[in-house]
Amino acid sequence: MFVKSCTNRSQEPTVDHEIPDIVIGRLPVYLRELSRMEREAGKTTTSSHELAERLGISSAQIRKDLSHFGEFGKQGTGYHINYLIERLSEILRLTREWPVALVGAGFLGHALASYRGFQRRGFAITCVFDSDPAKIGEHIGELVVQDVADLETALGGQGIEIAILAVPADAAQVTAERLVQAGIKAILNYAPVSLTVPPGVHVSHSDPVVQLQQMTYYLLPE
Amino acid sequence: MFVKSCTNRSQEPTVDHEIPDIVIGRLPVYLRELSRMEREAGKTTTSSHELAERLGISSAQIRKDLSHFGEFGKQGTGYHINYLIERLSEILRLTREWPVALVGAGFLGHALASYRGFQRRGFAITCVFDSDPAKIGEHIGELVVQDVADLETALGGQGIEIAILAVPADAAQVTAERLVQAGIKAILNYAPVSLTVPPGVHVSHSDPVVQLQQMTYYLLPE
Repeated sequence: MFVKSCTNRSQEPTVDHEIPDIVIGRLPVYLRELSRMEREAGKTTTSSHELAERLGISSAQIRKDLSHFGEFGKQGTGYHINYLIERLSEILRLTREWPVALVGAGFLGHALASYRGFQRRGFAITCVFDSDPAKIGEHIGELVVQDVADLETALGGQGIEIAILAVPADAAQVTAERLVQAGIKAILNYAPVSLTVPPGVHVSHSDPVVQLQQMTYYLLPE
Repeated sequence: MFVKSCTNRSQEPTVDHEIPDIVIGRLPVYLRELSRMEREAGKTTTSSHELAERLGISSAQIRKDLSHFGEFGKQGTGYHINYLIERLSEILRLTREWPVALVGAGFLGHALASYRGFQRRGFAITCVFDSDPAKIGEHIGELVVQDVADLETALGGQGIEIAILAVPADAAQVTAERLVQAGIKAILNYAPVSLTVPPGVHVSHSDPVVQLQQMTYYLLPE
């Protein structure tokens, strides 16, 4: 949500400007549904119509989005799910596993650190930080909460480019700046505050209240 | 994230079709930042330029978005923050408090039920449900986890229109259908799966992996 304005694409030298952020934004949703169809329904082929039906968007939209990246299916025969999954994974750079640093070991941090959905989909939280002495040293699954004061040291030379920020609003900006200094290039921010980051650093915000407020507009008075 | 395709706006009879979803989607972010400026910086006036600077988007974008709803500021004098907050709250129907039903009392459910950010911004989680006998009866703050089997009874006649879905992927669709049957009109879905809902029911998805995958596309190879 609200990714486009935060990704500084205009400053990104090598991004294909022909592909709108909104299109890129939908690809992971296509990938998620295709993987689900293959894994749970044991399907091997599908059509833009079937995918559209399951996603609640138009089949024309799906075909248009995919057409940015070449030919994926044939009229009539549809898409080979496995091939489409492979291509989308390549496009989204998911053919590798991305290590992720998590900052914040509160309720949300625990929920994220315990979430099994990351690994299967290309990500692995490899370190967790907090500033609370009561939390430092705590075990969350196989992870041990580290002192956020040691952030730079711990991240140094590890090649971690992605961080999840699950800290209070007041700590978010300063923590984000330290993460960027430590080499982080993409931040998923759960703090309910906008972040200012340098060009080339990408931020995606997750704020349940913003998402609820985006829907109340459409709720009609009783 | 990905709200537009899920809100079935085309089926909504009374929504002003002149205002794009993407514009509505930014209003809560403006509201959040304006509230923060007023609360923490003690500011009473601001400009589209200052707001743009803090949000990392263009001032022209902000002026264009707000212009959909009339005149909010004067050239030179800028915006009165308190007035703009009031107007945005009216537009987003936040002049009332919205009760919210939470389904799922796992790690994420606990994080959401314990989150203090809802109340101040127009929402109150008034009931929590889970199917796990070990969780039913558990206290989360002032809330007691109820048996999801009693969902319809518990929601009956309470006028709750908003629900947060924090259940496993496999349980999401069936739970969503029960919520809709019980009168829910807006669902914030944390389950990593797309939901099929009737026209007029709004769904907003929150999937950290989708958000990370939307950023990896922009990360350049080392």
